[in-house]
This record gives sequence, C-alpha cells and structure tokens, in this order.
Amino acid sequence: MEQQFESFRQQLDESVVVREQLRSIVSDLDSAIRLMHAALLPLYHHSSIEAIHKAKGHISEFQRLYTKLGEVLKSCPGEYYRYHDHWRNQTQQVIFLLSFVNWLEFGNLLSHGEVESLLDLQQKEFFVDLEDYLIGLCNMSNELPRYVVNQVTAGIYDCPKRVSLFLSDLYAAFRILNLRNDFLRKRFDGIKYDLKKVEEVLYDVQIRGLLNTSSQLASTVQPSTDELMQLQ
Amino acid sequence: MEQQFESFRQQLDESVVVREQLRSIVSDLDSAIRLMHAALLPLYHHSSIEAIHKAKGHISEFQRLYTKLGEVLKSCPGEYYRYHDHWRNQTQQVIFLLSFVNWLEFGNLLSHGEVESLLDLQQKEFFVDLEDYLIGLCNMSNELPRYVVNQVTAGIYDCPKRVSLFLSDLYAAFRILNLRNDFLRKRFDGIKYDLKKVEEVLYDVQIRGLLNTSSQLASTVQPSTDELMQLQ
Amino acid sequence: MEQQFESFRQQLDESVVVREQLRSIVSDLDSAIRLMHAALLPLYHHSSIEAIHKAKGHISEFQRLYTKLGEVLKSCPGEYYRYHDHWRNQTQQVIFLLSFVNWLEFGNLLSHGEVESLLDLQQKEFFVDLEDYLIGLCNMSNELPRYVVNQVTAGIYDCPKRVSLFLSDLYAAFRILNLRNDFLRKRFDGIKYDLKKVEEVLYDVQIRGLLNTSSQLASTVQPSTDELMQLQ
Amino acid sequence: MEQQFESFRQQLDESVVVREQLRSIVSDLDSAIRLMHAALLPLYHHSSIEAIHKAKGHISEFQRLYTKLGEVLKSCPGEYYRYHDHWRNQTQQVIFLLSFVNWLEFGNLLSHGEVESLLDLQQKEFFVDLEDYLIGLCNMSNELPRYVVNQVTAGIYDCPKRVSLFLSDLYAAFRILNLRNDFLRKRFDGIKYDLKKVEEVLYDVQIRGLLNTSSQLASTVQPSTDELMQLQ
Repeated sequence: MEQQFESFRQQLDESVVVREQLRSIVSDLDSAIRLMHAALLPLYHHSSIEAIHKAKGHISEFQRLYTKLGEVLKSCPGEYYRYHDHWRNQTQQVIFLLSFVNWLEFGNLLSHGEVESLLDLQQKEFFVDLEDYLIGLCNMSNELPRYVVNQVTAGIYDCPKRVSLFLSDLYAAFRILNLRNDFLRKRFDGIKYDLKKVEEVLYDVQIRGLLNTSSQLASTVQPSTDELMQLQ
Repeated sequence: MEQQFESFRQQLDESVVVREQLRSIVSDLDSAIRLMHAALLPLYHHSSIEAIHKAKGHISEFQRLYTKLGEVLKSCPGEYYRYHDHWRNQTQQVIFLLSFVNWLEFGNLLSHGEVESLLDLQQKEFFVDLEDYLIGLCNMSNELPRYVVNQVTAGIYDCPKRVSLFLSDLYAAFRILNLRNDFLRKRFDGIKYDLKKVEEVLYDVQIRGLLNTSSQLASTVQPSTDELMQLQ
Repeated sequence: MEQQFESFRQQLDESVVVREQLRSIVSDLDSAIRLMHAALLPLYHHSSIEAIHKAKGHISEFQRLYTKLGEVLKSCPGEYYRYHDHWRNQTQQVIFLLSFVNWLEFGNLLSHGEVESLLDLQQKEFFVDLEDYLIGLCNMSNELPRYVVNQVTAGIYDCPKRVSLFLSDLYAAFRILNLRNDFLRKRFDGIKYDLKKVEEVLYDVQIRGLLNTSSQLASTVQPSTDELMQLQ
Repeated sequence: MEQQFESFRQQLDESVVVREQLRSIVSDLDSAIRLMHAALLPLYHHSSIEAIHKAKGHISEFQRLYTKLGEVLKSCPGEYYRYHDHWRNQTQQVIFLLSFVNWLEFGNLLSHGEVESLLDLQQKEFFVDLEDYLIGLCNMSNELPRYVVNQVTAGIYDCPKRVSLFLSDLYAAFRILNLRNDFLRKRFDGIKYDLKKVEEVLYDVQIRGLLNTSSQLASTVQPSTDELMQLQ
C-alpha cells in the first residue's frame, strides 16, 4: 500500500507543480490585461489613436505568456481541460481587449482564427476554447454602449449608427448558435440590451438632427485606416 | 413491498419517458422560436414586409410541434398542469411572436382564441393557459418601445402615436383584471413603463414638429394592409 | 379588447376563488395534522396503545377535508396538478402520520392503495400523488431513529431489531425505483442514515447482552394485534 | 460573420451530441451501480458469500459501459477532462463498490491498476483519474464503520480488529500524500473519524471479553478465502 501511495504522491505533487506554474503565469497575464485595459482608458476622453497604439503594445506580452502556458501544457498532453479553470477568465478578458481594439481599428469582428494568430498559438498544445472566445465577444458587446455614449458626448455623432449595425449583426450571428439554457445563453441575451441601449442613443442623435453635422469631427477623432496601418 | 415498489418504478419511469418526449419537442420549439425571432430582426433596419412574411413562414412549425405536445398529453389525460413547466416559457415566447406579428400587420390585439386557432389547438388535450397568454402579451408590450425608437430613427414619425394608443388600450384592459400580488401583476406593471417610454418618444417627435413630415416616408417602410394581405 | 379581458377577469377570479377554497381547507388540514401529531407525542414516554388510539381518532377529520378538496376539484376537472402545491406538503405529512401509526400497529408498510382508502379517496377527482406518498414514507423513516432511541430508553430492547429489519426492507424497496437526481432521490438517501442510526442502537443493545431480557417488557408496552383490533 | 458562426454552431452542436451520448451511458452506469449496490445489501444481515457473488456479477456491465465511454472519447482526443464531470461521481461510486468487494474477499486494498484492469481500461482513451480513485477509497472507508457495527451485532467479534488494522494502514498511506486544502483533503480527514468509530467498537468488544468467543460464529458468516475463490 505504501509503495503505491508513494507513487500517487509523486503524481499529485506533479499536478501541484503544474498548477503553481500556471498560477504564476496567469498572475502575470492579469497584470498584462490590467495594463492593456489602462492603456485604453484615454479612449473615453480623447486621442483614440494614441490609446489604441499603446494598447496594442501589450499584445506581445500576451504572446509571451500564452507561449509559456503552452509550454507548461506540453508536459501534460491531453490535460488542457483539466487545468482550463486557471486561465478561463483571463482568456475571456484577453478576447475582449483584442476584439475591442480590432473593432476600433477596422470596424469588424476579430475572428477566432485571428485571435489565435495574434496570440501566437499555432502550436497544438494551447488553443482558445470556442466558448471562451464567444464570452469574450459578449464582454466586448457590454462595453460598446458606454463607448457610444462617450463618443456622442465628444461630438462624434455617427458612432451610434456604426455600433448599432455591428451589434445587430453580432446579435444575429449569435442567434445562429443553438444555445441551450447555459451560461453562454445568458451572456448572449445581454447583447440585446447593449443593442437596445445603443439604439436609444442613435435615436437621440437622429431626433435632434445631429447625424449629418458630425462627419467632419468624426474623421478627426476616429482614426483612419491609413493612420492605423502605420501603427502596426 | 417489492412488488408494490416494482409497480411504482414503472409509473415513475413512465413519467420520465413523458418528460423526455416533452423535452425533445420543446427543444424543437426553441429552435422554431429562435428562427421566427431571427426572421423578425430585419424589421429594425428596413423591409418590414419581408420580415413579417418570413416570420409567418415559421407558424406551421409551431402548429406541428404543438400538435405533437397534444399527442403526448393525450396519453396522460388530466396531467396538463403536471408537465406545464416544460412548455410554459416557450409558449409565452410564441404568444409574444404571434401577437407582435399580428400587431405589425393589423394594428390590433391577437385574441386568446385566435392564438389557439393559429396554433391548431382545437383538440381538447392541449390549450394555451390564460396566464401564459397574458404574460406573452406583456412580452410584446416590452418589445414595443424598442420598435418605436427604431422606427422614429428610420424617419417613421407616426409610429409612436399608434403604439401609444395601442399600449394605453392594453394597459386599460389589464386593469380590468383583478390581479393580486403575483408574477402576472409584476409583469403587468411593466406595461406602464413601456407606455411611459413610448409617450416620451411621442413627445420628442411632437415637440420638434416631426409628426406631419413622416407620412410619406412611413408609407414606404410600414407595409400597408393591402400589401400584407397578399402575403397570406 | 375590453370584452375579452372582462371574460379573462372572470376566469382569473374563478381560479382565485378555487385557490381561496383550497387554502381554507388546507388550513383546516394543518390543524388536523397538528392534532394527530400531538396525540402521538405520549408515544415517546408511555402508553403507546392510548396514543395510537387517540391519533387514529383524527383520521375521520382527514377524510372530511380530503372529501372537501375533492369537491372543489370536481369543479375544475383536469386541474389537480394546477393546484397541487396547495396540499402537497400537508399530504406528505398525512402520509407520514398514517404510515407511522400503521407501522406501530401492524409492523408493516401502509400501501398507496391503503392510504387512499383510509382517506376515503375512491372518487376520481382526488388521489394521492405517487411522489407525495413516497416522500411521506421518507418522513416516517426519519422519525424512526428517535422512536427507537426512546423505546430502548424505556427498556423495550427488541425494538431496534424490528425497526432495522423494516428500514432495510424499505431501503431495498426504494432502491428498486430508478430515481434520478431530484428531490425524491435526496430524501431517499436519508433513509440510509436513519437505518445506520438504528443499527448503532441495535449494536449498543446487543453488545450489552440486553436483547433477551426485554421480551416480557416489550410485550406489555408494544400493543398486541388483538388489543389494537379493538381500537378500530 | 454568418459563415464563421455557422461553423461555431456545428462545433457547439457536436459537443452537445457528445454530452448526450455520455449522459445516456452514464445513466446506464447509474443503474448498474444501483444494482450492484442492491446486491450487496444482504451483506448486512446474512449470507455474505452470496451477496459478494451476486455483486461481482455486475462488474461485466461496468466493463461494457466504460468501454462505451472510451469509444465516445476516442472521437474527441485530449478532451477527457472537458467531459470529466459527466462520469466523475459515478466512477467514484464504482471504485467504492469494487474496492469494498475486494476487501470483503481478500482483506486488502484494490490498487489503481487493478481497478483499471477490472474495468477493462487498457485503451488509452479512458482511464481512472487518480483523485477519483482516492475519493472512491474514502467512500469505502466511510462504509466500514457501519459494516463493523452490523458484523458485531451478528456476533462476528473479530471484525473490528481486522477493519481497524486495515483502516489505520489506509490512513497512514493517505498521510504520505502531500494533500493541500482541497476536497480530497477533507475526504481524507473523514478516514480518521471512520477509524476512531471502528476503534470504539473494537474497545466495546475487547472490554467485554467477546473477542475470543466469536471465532466459530465468524467462520460461518464471513466467507473463507477458499469459498470465495470458487466464486470467481
């Protein structure tokens, strides 16, 4: 009995070591997320180009940390889901940041494949779980009403229209999924409220005839694609 | 004791079989609801005639599934309320969709009898519970402010007036009911907030003198009764 | 709209009337349960024959009240499960009392059919739901360890043996049921703990060599079948 | 966006199909566990040889169902831990049953490797998670005090000695593991209480000088290894 339990101890200790390695990496991931988030804050006041530029500077840190996660998992093949809880929340926040920044730059949805490529996850050991990707998109949706309100306050009156079109496309896309009564389903329901909120802002802008007055202003605050290309 | 419990086991297992049959049908009902809802989404941007037309195409699937629910219940007479929880939410959503589409077409309230006839529920085994019908109407009421906001944004300025008249009639009708402090009462209170929101939009439109400018636009977006008749 | 809602009001009011009638009857049922329960209390000190006799005197009140429940339900056929929540708990307590008293008298399990016959439920309008019956039996099981402890304290040393045999039969019978992860399943798991507790009392009695000393005492406290027959 | 989400829908639906297959197999596993458990119940009254014999007859059903689980997992390599929750509890119960029956027969601990070989799990797709194995052993430990109490009640007075030696070995073995403050740690603490309870029974037996009086009785109730060998 002793011999067997001695070998159990080794196995359990190995798993504890893996968990400690993961915890340490994920703690660094938390810091990187906080820094990228902080870099985006000026977005709500002014100078979105600079904010996006700064925020994108943190992506390389994500790459470094996800590469480390992949290396730890390389030592325990087939156990991605055994340790999934360690990085689940953080990955959802990373998806939020990446897809939000991508939308600010290009106005479209960052695909699941693009996320993995941005995070340098071409190795087989690590990947972005599909549900984590989708929840990350819900997080981005939840941020957009606040962004719209601040943009309109700053005089960028065409923002609600663009966001409402994007969110209704996203909402329609989520409806394609056959979501059962689970966590993802509840998060998806939230997109509808985000959309409704944005539509109300759009309504306010339209009813006051402000929509056509903003084109010039908007072009100065919302970065052009050319400008953004240079940042990459 | 064993013999008696053996017969109990059979009875409980039969009830599990019924529940599994119901779950499977209700899961299909969920898909049908999702599809009809998705068909209505373009309503919020353009082309309401087409959206209504597409949405109505899903009603036959509802008929098929409610017929199947009725067939399952035929095997357990008097147990409609034993299994009510299985289809309660879905039926409320179906009422929402049917009464919303009906209002879009005809501008009036779909009656309880009309719902049962639309769903082909003339058999005695299955019917629409009155409270489910009333909660479905509350759901429709909750959707109308969003509809009004989007219509006005699209330049259809007479929409708030029509909706406010309909909602105040609906609110008055609910007041006839002697509702105690229960779930239905809380949902009914929500109609008041929907009405208030629509009245605020109506006020915005009126104060800006927009009401008379929209007649032409509206007629191109809001389908006429004649056009709708051809769809049926 | 008004006419339709006027008829809805009538239907809802009728349902409120039914609920009020049920509430009033069930409140009387609560009193009858309390009284029968109180009548059984002396069981834990002395004179079990008298306690059983007194307790059985309350069964006729149960009959009267269940007949009234049946009459109310006669006016709304097929709606037993619509109003089930009103009497569910009380019926489970009634099953507990009837099956406990029956076990005290005859040492066997009161069958589902015997319960319905004791409550005079031969009409079709009212019946005892199978799950309520089974939960009532779990309630009886939960009472037995306390009964055993008190009997042994009173010097009736053969009681644990009889109860442990009865409970292990009951436990085995419940295992025949294919219970899923629901409320009944959790209640059934409790029988195992009751059985374990009784087995520990039996162990205490056996290890001290008390089992054979009690036969005389027991026969004077535990009523004989003849005595009980006269009580009926 | 639609195309991407259409492919997401397929992936999510595939995962739902896997979950439904697993649920169906695990439901059968529940039945098999229930039956093997029921077969062991007579152990607590009489005829342990027959009970063990009957119980072992259910192991082939476990083999069949774990083979089916392995086949489902073959279609999704590396996702054992993604779906682990589906069979976790059941596997712990299976370990409990197998290790208990093994102890009844041979008086020693069923090793992790022996469990996998009893369940025919030589394929790579499926294995018994180490923590599930250890929790299953804790479950067995929790059952032993009840077994001891019943054996002593039946006059088998050497049982507490044998169990207390086994449990103190098991407790010592668990102490080798470097368990942190987690679920397994709490379950392991339970072994200490089981051991204490058994030691109390052993004390009761010893203090009354019953230990040497039972050898004859015991040999008739507790099956000898020879008898058991013939059952295999």
